[in-house]
Amino acid sequence: MKLLNQYPNIQKEMDIVQELLIKTVQSRQPLVKKTAVEAISSKGKRLRPLLVILSAMLGEYDSKTILPLAAAIELIHTATLVHDDIIDESKLGRGRESIQSQWGKDVAVFTGDFLLCKAFFMISQNGKGNQKDFSRFIQAIKIICEGEIQQYDFRYKTNITIRQYLKRIAAKTAILFSVSCYIGALQAKCSKKIIHALVRYGMSFGMAFQITDDVLDLTGEISLLGKPVHTDLLQGIYTLPIIYTLQHSRYSERLKKLLQKEEHGQQYLSEIYDLVNQSGGVEYSKQLAQKYLIRAEQAIRILPDCDSKKIMIQLLEMILDRTM
Amino acid sequence: MKLLNQYPNIQKEMDIVQELLIKTVQSRQPLVKKTAVEAISSKGKRLRPLLVILSAMLGEYDSKTILPLAAAIELIHTATLVHDDIIDESKLGRGRESIQSQWGKDVAVFTGDFLLCKAFFMISQNGKGNQKDFSRFIQAIKIICEGEIQQYDFRYKTNITIRQYLKRIAAKTAILFSVSCYIGALQAKCSKKIIHALVRYGMSFGMAFQITDDVLDLTGEISLLGKPVHTDLLQGIYTLPIIYTLQHSRYSERLKKLLQKEEHGQQYLSEIYDLVNQSGGVEYSKQLAQKYLIRAEQAIRILPDCDSKKIMIQLLEMILDRTM
Repeated sequence: MKLLNQYPNIQKEMDIVQELLIKTVQSRQPLVKKTAVEAISSKGKRLRPLLVILSAMLGEYDSKTILPLAAAIELIHTATLVHDDIIDESKLGRGRESIQSQWGKDVAVFTGDFLLCKAFFMISQNGKGNQKDFSRFIQAIKIICEGEIQQYDFRYKTNITIRQYLKRIAAKTAILFSVSCYIGALQAKCSKKIIHALVRYGMSFGMAFQITDDVLDLTGEISLLGKPVHTDLLQGIYTLPIIYTLQHSRYSERLKKLLQKEEHGQQYLSEIYDLVNQSGGVEYSKQLAQKYLIRAEQAIRILPDCDSKKIMIQLLEMILDRTM
Repeated sequence: MKLLNQYPNIQKEMDIVQELLIKTVQSRQPLVKKTAVEAISSKGKRLRPLLVILSAMLGEYDSKTILPLAAAIELIHTATLVHDDIIDESKLGRGRESIQSQWGKDVAVFTGDFLLCKAFFMISQNGKGNQKDFSRFIQAIKIICEGEIQQYDFRYKTNITIRQYLKRIAAKTAILFSVSCYIGALQAKCSKKIIHALVRYGMSFGMAFQITDDVLDLTGEISLLGKPVHTDLLQGIYTLPIIYTLQHSRYSERLKKLLQKEEHGQQYLSEIYDLVNQSGGVEYSKQLAQKYLIRAEQAIRILPDCDSKKIMIQLLEMILDRTM
């Protein structure tokens, strides 16, 4: 990440995380090695390991215990991405061909499981690895799974509420950001006050991140970031701008009709986009994302001035401009 | 299992495992709860928890620590079954409609992950839960994943060797049986000698079990057990009887031609079966399974006479008659 150019000490830690990742996913089985390395080599932003490190730097930072945890969190995230791709049947994951489109569902399912195991293994091997850490990790993954299934359960349901949407993205995205901050701070023996601040930061950061992602998926701008677009809509997953529009009677019926259409060409997509835009759904979503960004910023005001705090604020600005 | 009618004390433990399983997979998300409960409610034989219990009974048996481990192992097994079904695209898992054919791949992927998390959680929460246990579990799952991917990697390869086949079934099946015995015996503080005997028993048991399963899949007799048949063959997964035939020049070329055919009707299947039968492939496989059964029986000869030993021997006989 460009941002880290100014912080060579943190970039160094991130480089070690990358090395750890590559080292961890080795396997004697050649195809496993290939797919696992490929999965973790994609150009992820590594936001979660970064949050682990930044949080830990607010306490007694010990790279020996922190970096494996940071890598483990990235492995968990990567595993859920690989499994997500199976569902999306998307050809691109993070700007590359996905494991499943290259190797089939078989390999994708078990590559994901393999990565999950490796993550658990890293956590369990971790020197100080206490049970509390471990339970947090597992709870987080459990909640992610529930979030993903909830998402499926609500597919094509036009009566989904904003509250239900927020619960879903909290589960599938924000929790892991929050856990990243928590684990880092906990390991570094930060005070309860700081841990609490970081957990709140991670949560709000994650919410803002996902809402922004959902808006970009709808507007199609996400393609600039190398991801496929409109995947949610085409799979009947309705995100905030759509839900907002469905709840505003002037546009609701027209949108429902459009969503029922079988034909899914470019024309269809731009009609939906126009409607959502007119209704104020895009604007509303952007504003809600901003609210979360403000909350995240407020949460960490109590932190002492330091690099971690500076970078955490810069990350919020990056979501706002969505340059990452 | 009928066998346990004569051992009410063990049946009682197995009933508690069943209750634990149901209790563990609860979720606030209604669909998750439904699919997870369904996955663990299917009529599995619960061989792995049984082996955990039987092994532990050879030492200082403490149901409070043993039964959660027994349940956790069954959860791991169930998770891999759910993920397996995605790959098989099979409509029946254990005689019922599979999660994926009922709810789609989405739900199946994350139901499997959810079950895996629950298993890890149970293990990590376990009172005496030491790191050694935990690492064993994770190593086992890792190896299962590698086995599954190896299986995929060798699809449609007619030059697969018997050695490669044995390695594959060791990874995808036998290891977990072996770990079941190991974990039970370790927790119950059995002697090294007994632990070693049980590990060997579990391994040979698992090998015999899988070879028998593979033969039945080919002969179609497995349908009596409520499973779909010929699934391996139709997916290009060549099992022992096929591999044996491919290595015997008199039949090799004819079989290769048959395997390349696009048309997969009943006629095709019985032609293959006839050829494999003629070549002695079925007979060879049955004999190899028997060899493993004998090895398993030999491994536990050193055990004192007790219910565990008796049941373990009866389990071997059940594989031989394949009444389970």
